[in-house]
Amino acid sequence: MVKVNPYEVSGDIDYGKLIKQFGVSKISPALLKKIGTDNLLVKRGGFYAHRDLNKIINGKFAIVSGRGPSSKMHLGHLAMFKAIRDIQKKHGCFVFIPFSDDEKMLVKGLDYDEVRKMAIDNAKDILALGFDPKKTKIMFDLTDMNQDIYNLAIRASSKITLSTIKAIMGFKDSKNIGSFFYPAIQAAHILYPTYKYNLPTIVMVGMDQDPFVRLTRDIAGKLGLKKPGDLINIYLPGLSGSGKMSSSDERSAIYTNDSKNDVETKIKRAFSGGRETLADHKKYGGNPDIDASYLYLKYFFEDDDEKLKQIYRDYKSGKLLTGELKKYTADKANKFLAKHQSARKKIKIEKYLI
Amino acid sequence: MVKVNPYEVSGDIDYGKLIKQFGVSKISPALLKKIGTDNLLVKRGGFYAHRDLNKIINGKFAIVSGRGPSSKMHLGHLAMFKAIRDIQKKHGCFVFIPFSDDEKMLVKGLDYDEVRKMAIDNAKDILALGFDPKKTKIMFDLTDMNQDIYNLAIRASSKITLSTIKAIMGFKDSKNIGSFFYPAIQAAHILYPTYKYNLPTIVMVGMDQDPFVRLTRDIAGKLGLKKPGDLINIYLPGLSGSGKMSSSDERSAIYTNDSKNDVETKIKRAFSGGRETLADHKKYGGNPDIDASYLYLKYFFEDDDEKLKQIYRDYKSGKLLTGELKKYTADKANKFLAKHQSARKKIKIEKYLI
Repeated sequence: MVKVNPYEVSGDIDYGKLIKQFGVSKISPALLKKIGTDNLLVKRGGFYAHRDLNKIINGKFAIVSGRGPSSKMHLGHLAMFKAIRDIQKKHGCFVFIPFSDDEKMLVKGLDYDEVRKMAIDNAKDILALGFDPKKTKIMFDLTDMNQDIYNLAIRASSKITLSTIKAIMGFKDSKNIGSFFYPAIQAAHILYPTYKYNLPTIVMVGMDQDPFVRLTRDIAGKLGLKKPGDLINIYLPGLSGSGKMSSSDERSAIYTNDSKNDVETKIKRAFSGGRETLADHKKYGGNPDIDASYLYLKYFFEDDDEKLKQIYRDYKSGKLLTGELKKYTADKANKFLAKHQSARKKIKIEKYLI
Repeated sequence: MVKVNPYEVSGDIDYGKLIKQFGVSKISPALLKKIGTDNLLVKRGGFYAHRDLNKIINGKFAIVSGRGPSSKMHLGHLAMFKAIRDIQKKHGCFVFIPFSDDEKMLVKGLDYDEVRKMAIDNAKDILALGFDPKKTKIMFDLTDMNQDIYNLAIRASSKITLSTIKAIMGFKDSKNIGSFFYPAIQAAHILYPTYKYNLPTIVMVGMDQDPFVRLTRDIAGKLGLKKPGDLINIYLPGLSGSGKMSSSDERSAIYTNDSKNDVETKIKRAFSGGRETLADHKKYGGNPDIDASYLYLKYFFEDDDEKLKQIYRDYKSGKLLTGELKKYTADKANKFLAKHQSARKKIKIEKYLI
């Protein structure tokens, strides 16, 4: 069964169906061109739907993309933030990344100290990608609540009934009051650049978060602020070949703090589109479209379009063997991670705090 | 019908019954002595109940007393803040006065700009009483939300179920989510001095707010913080002789911005304990215990105990006429207001912001 809602994404996802179900617009090639970056996720189909992006992309805008802290970040998370970094490079836009450590405590019931540690770790991972320090702000809700954002949250909360939140979230009366209130904080995160700098905002999210964007669009209207748009990314496939990468399933993804060995082992065990025997593979060829290593190259590691095409052709024809493809991907991954882990150590979070 | 709950206080209040109903402790003369100030409200029975005051009063402590902004403040409001000022003078305690402008927007549905103006006006009235600027902090929730207080509010909110709030407040699902969350902010206000300075807190309130104190005591236990106590004041009687002074009933109270004429007219029309005719009054005497002017002198204006006793005796015997008592009270009130209105103009709110 396919589930896509703010608290669960699972099953084999049909993106065409999701577009209809959520009532968003499909991304056109012309619109993709307007985003105008060579980012792999952007140019290779990692974004498939949007709201109002066509209206917002032509002028000055801000990007908001929050992070609900998790114990580890994987490459699927980073891919989206890399895209934000690259759009910032291209458009010079203000980027705001709020960390909803409060929501993880409230909704998921995580321990305070644990969630604080995760939030700081995640922030380092994201900032290590190289955002413009002059145009990028982060905030940890629990320790840095900004006065403008609280103000916005209260005004937003005055426009949201409990019934609405119950309908979106399905919470019962035995749930804590913070969980019911949190959507007002999320709305305030999204509306902050509009409120503070009068910039229209693009929210970059997975479809599971679109109900919040829709709610925030309603609220923006009621508060006399410009409605935010969104740009919706696919869920990068997990290493096991089904479902998306997950923070909680160790084997499903490459994490930012994985060692060289971890990466090699994980990719060796990863789901492949190769044939059962070497002879069959050489004879009939493999299927790159479902091969985890190939998809990692496509969305994350292989900058060279020609090289990627060649890998695709060679794997499909059987000329490129699964072991060879895996080794190539593992090397690329380890090269990236070595650089990333070193950049991560140099990040001074304070520089980016709101 | 008598109603005392967080959103309504009306009817003829039996304080003995309230003590039983709310499960608080009666104030003993020994405990009053420990408060140790000549403040009129303290020494003349303006405080009648408490929680844990006997435990807290012996050491260092803080006072928290919030204000839900109203269009005007009356002398009943000021009397309580005067008592806080005098306890601060005696004990050198830290005083925190949060203005719950957010709650007025959320629960009462007041307009944002209106509620902001009221909050600033009310703050000037309170601060004009002369708090120690080094030991007194105020905060307007809507514009100055403090990071520690938001942090506390989230942690508090994680310990309060929606069912609990529904039981205390009686809100329906059609109410906005901010209204359900606000008690967590109020708990955070109360717990702030304990969290920040490890000081036990005395909350100074009317009994209608005791359910929030009780809720906050529960939460304090769950967060590993010292439980706050409270000191509960009577509702000063209105000028009409029944019910308490009210911010919304123009005739029920003397407001801080009333003119000399307003005061004279209001006191002239006020409920008196005098007899119907002059002859009867002289013959049988009046009843000071129900006389609005006398009660104003008792709780607010007449510092001199001997003088007050003499007025009591003379009014009871019929020697002092209602007109004379009213004139005496009106003069005292106008003298106070002239001084207060001038002090109010000199208040710089910024000096006190958290």
